[in-house]
Amino acid sequence: GELVHLLKADQLQEATDYWNKKTFALVTGASRGIGRTLAEKIAKQIAPESVLLLISRDEKSLGSLKQAIETDRPAVRVYVGVTDLSTCDESALNGLVSSALAGDSAESFAHALCIHNVGSLGDATKRCSDLTQTTSCVDYFRLNVASVVVLNAIFLRHFASGKQQRKTVVNMSSLCAVEPFASLSLYCTGKAARDMFFKVLAKEEPEVRVLNYAPGPVETSMRSQLLDQSWIDEIKSGGLGLTTTVTCDRLMALLARDSYASGAHVDYYDS
Amino acid sequence: GELVHLLKADQLQEATDYWNKKTFALVTGASRGIGRTLAEKIAKQIAPESVLLLISRDEKSLGSLKQAIETDRPAVRVYVGVTDLSTCDESALNGLVSSALAGDSAESFAHALCIHNVGSLGDATKRCSDLTQTTSCVDYFRLNVASVVVLNAIFLRHFASGKQQRKTVVNMSSLCAVEPFASLSLYCTGKAARDMFFKVLAKEEPEVRVLNYAPGPVETSMRSQLLDQSWIDEIKSGGLGLTTTVTCDRLMALLARDSYASGAHVDYYDS
Repeated sequence: GELVHLLKADQLQEATDYWNKKTFALVTGASRGIGRTLAEKIAKQIAPESVLLLISRDEKSLGSLKQAIETDRPAVRVYVGVTDLSTCDESALNGLVSSALAGDSAESFAHALCIHNVGSLGDATKRCSDLTQTTSCVDYFRLNVASVVVLNAIFLRHFASGKQQRKTVVNMSSLCAVEPFASLSLYCTGKAARDMFFKVLAKEEPEVRVLNYAPGPVETSMRSQLLDQSWIDEIKSGGLGLTTTVTCDRLMALLARDSYASGAHVDYYDS
Repeated sequence: GELVHLLKADQLQEATDYWNKKTFALVTGASRGIGRTLAEKIAKQIAPESVLLLISRDEKSLGSLKQAIETDRPAVRVYVGVTDLSTCDESALNGLVSSALAGDSAESFAHALCIHNVGSLGDATKRCSDLTQTTSCVDYFRLNVASVVVLNAIFLRHFASGKQQRKTVVNMSSLCAVEPFASLSLYCTGKAARDMFFKVLAKEEPEVRVLNYAPGPVETSMRSQLLDQSWIDEIKSGGLGLTTTVTCDRLMALLARDSYASGAHVDYYDS
């Protein structure tokens, strides 16, 4: 009883120390699922004058999320970045980060946090030998890898002058980044690519904290699509997944504890 | 002495049994370096009426390679596929494989072999935080990943009816597929992506033999570019690399021995 209480008190202290700072947090794929829950949870914990930049294609859902957050935390500024990461270019992304910074200087933030949550499953009805269309393959890697690489560079450049601030980059990874699954070739390939990219980033930038977080099987629209499309029994019989709440809580506790090796792949189920 | 002789005799027998069959062999990036040496070596060992489809952008180098092979092995038909894998689409690739098959039926080949050797280094002067250009990132993954995925599917579809034939797919991998190196973010990312794709292929198609082969540090124009561009001392001081001959011999012996687990990553230096 008492030990549990002490642990919980420790964790609360860690969370407060980590999150209760003036933070610039960028979240992609923020309109629904894990991205939306994460945005809501981060908004509750960051200090006044923090900025949340929420990126998604879905203007309506982003708008309602912004409204909900601003009602709950009027001292947090929410910028909505409506853009399609599968087609936009660097000038659009650059514009979003610049606009969200607006009058504020990048150096004024104690923490710059970038969460690369965007991702698509690909067509899980297809085998490797069905992937004969150049355009759909090119588009898949553009959304899931190239746009992540470019947005990441733009983010880091905007905060390059903040020598003293904490910088954190989170890649929403998957078990599929480290284990191959039949029927998920593009998904596994894109996730493996992202994990490796962020491992290289961790090597290049020792002052940036980099985490590849695999959220487990979470109840999202992507999971519905997967259970619907896959022709692999093992996948189809996956059963009920985790809630976005439990996996986002775990990610936020991992970040606050701050004991992961930069560039590591950490799974929800890792002890 | 005697044991070595017996081993060598075994290896020669393995090589003959494996290679001396009517083979359809496709090699990308065939105009120079590892691809060119591999094409020359395969041409020497495959049976009469075999077909070699050699793909590269470089028409002149491919032409001289074709001439050299046809002089050495007039019974092997060499098709030259001049195309730029960074821009071409599926109809161009489909046309190349169809043309190389020409009058011959896919089923008539005892072995269908596809070697994905194409690859580019990316700009090794750049850090992750320099990768702000969407077009160059998209192009990188198009050449190094998407074109490989599409050509692979087209190859497998052409030989789908050959139920009895041996099918082998080789991905030219790298230590960079499994270990992150600063200054090589795109290269590591693309190689990790390819390894994972071919691991999934091995899961999906148990009758296809799939090998991710890391050739070691080989003296090629890519290695010159790397030593020239990288800002990492550990990489720049790499010293003399392997010849294309020794690494291609090792790959061909691995294939002939046929004891690798399908989908495995095997390095030149693995025992």
